[in-house]
Amino acid sequence: MEEFKKKIKLVSRDLKYKGTIMDIYDDTVEVDGHITHWDYMGKCDAAAILPVLPNGNILMVRQYRLAVDEWTLELPAGKLDYDGEDYLECAKRELEEEAGCKSDNIEFLCDVYTASAFCSEVVRIFVATNLQKGKQHFDRDEEVVVEEWTPENLKKAIYDGKLKDGKTVSGLMTYFTKFNV
Amino acid sequence: MEEFKKKIKLVSRDLKYKGTIMDIYDDTVEVDGHITHWDYMGKCDAAAILPVLPNGNILMVRQYRLAVDEWTLELPAGKLDYDGEDYLECAKRELEEEAGCKSDNIEFLCDVYTASAFCSEVVRIFVATNLQKGKQHFDRDEEVVVEEWTPENLKKAIYDGKLKDGKTVSGLMTYFTKFNV
Repeated sequence: MEEFKKKIKLVSRDLKYKGTIMDIYDDTVEVDGHITHWDYMGKCDAAAILPVLPNGNILMVRQYRLAVDEWTLELPAGKLDYDGEDYLECAKRELEEEAGCKSDNIEFLCDVYTASAFCSEVVRIFVATNLQKGKQHFDRDEEVVVEEWTPENLKKAIYDGKLKDGKTVSGLMTYFTKFNV
Repeated sequence: MEEFKKKIKLVSRDLKYKGTIMDIYDDTVEVDGHITHWDYMGKCDAAAILPVLPNGNILMVRQYRLAVDEWTLELPAGKLDYDGEDYLECAKRELEEEAGCKSDNIEFLCDVYTASAFCSEVVRIFVATNLQKGKQHFDRDEEVVVEEWTPENLKKAIYDGKLKDGKTVSGLMTYFTKFNV
């Protein structure tokens, strides 16, 4: 990228706080010869899955999110069990744990950075068809309700500003565009 | 949401770290009678804009993002200048500062939560047409290069896992679906 005139150099990355699911750092950065500070969040990557029923409807999960104080409608998703875990294994686990389904036909849909301005996290999103019944079970502090939605109603919820979860909007709309749904 | 059996109650929200653009809290939460801890990030909301040229191409911005160590391709976007600033004013400002354009025809596209699991941030995304030349200028530590992309190439970059910025995937794909592009 030679058209860029400003030079950016990371001088140091200092851990400031360890949370439950995130590590927060203060990056000391040299930009064009002067020193500045940027926030950095290290966070385990995640996987999400878009389960499509034979009738074309999509299985979604509803759960309470304290950070936004809302019962959000989302794709089944979860973080990798450990750094480097296969994204597909994680997606299969979340499909069964949250939506109670298995599938032998899962394909890559898209990758999304949660917040590229300050966070390293990637969410890899898959599409699952040929759904079979599995066994729903949750983490201790988690409880989700599965809902079946038509593509038309999901689009309307997004256009109306009612369905807002970022990975979910990315995944659904990429699916609708790619498969002309 | 009476089908939920687990009761979630915020006991306290304790500030642990103040970063440059974020405040990090430890939430003490009572879930179904036992105490647990969740991360919470307070962060100013933001606006993004999808500028459409008369030929149907889209103006994108390329910039270096240290958190993901990549020259990301994104919609022009920025955070509100203050809590409660009008999202549309913010979007107009970013359209001019980053993409060097003005528009008298801007409409709401969708809202996205950056990360509803731990962060309160909403990004409101708009579509701009009738673009007029404005004056590009950057914040001190910012430098972006404007690129003109066809919808087809943007779709391909997302399907190939090359364009990953979350708000950008959400905004582009919602635009393509809603306007049948």
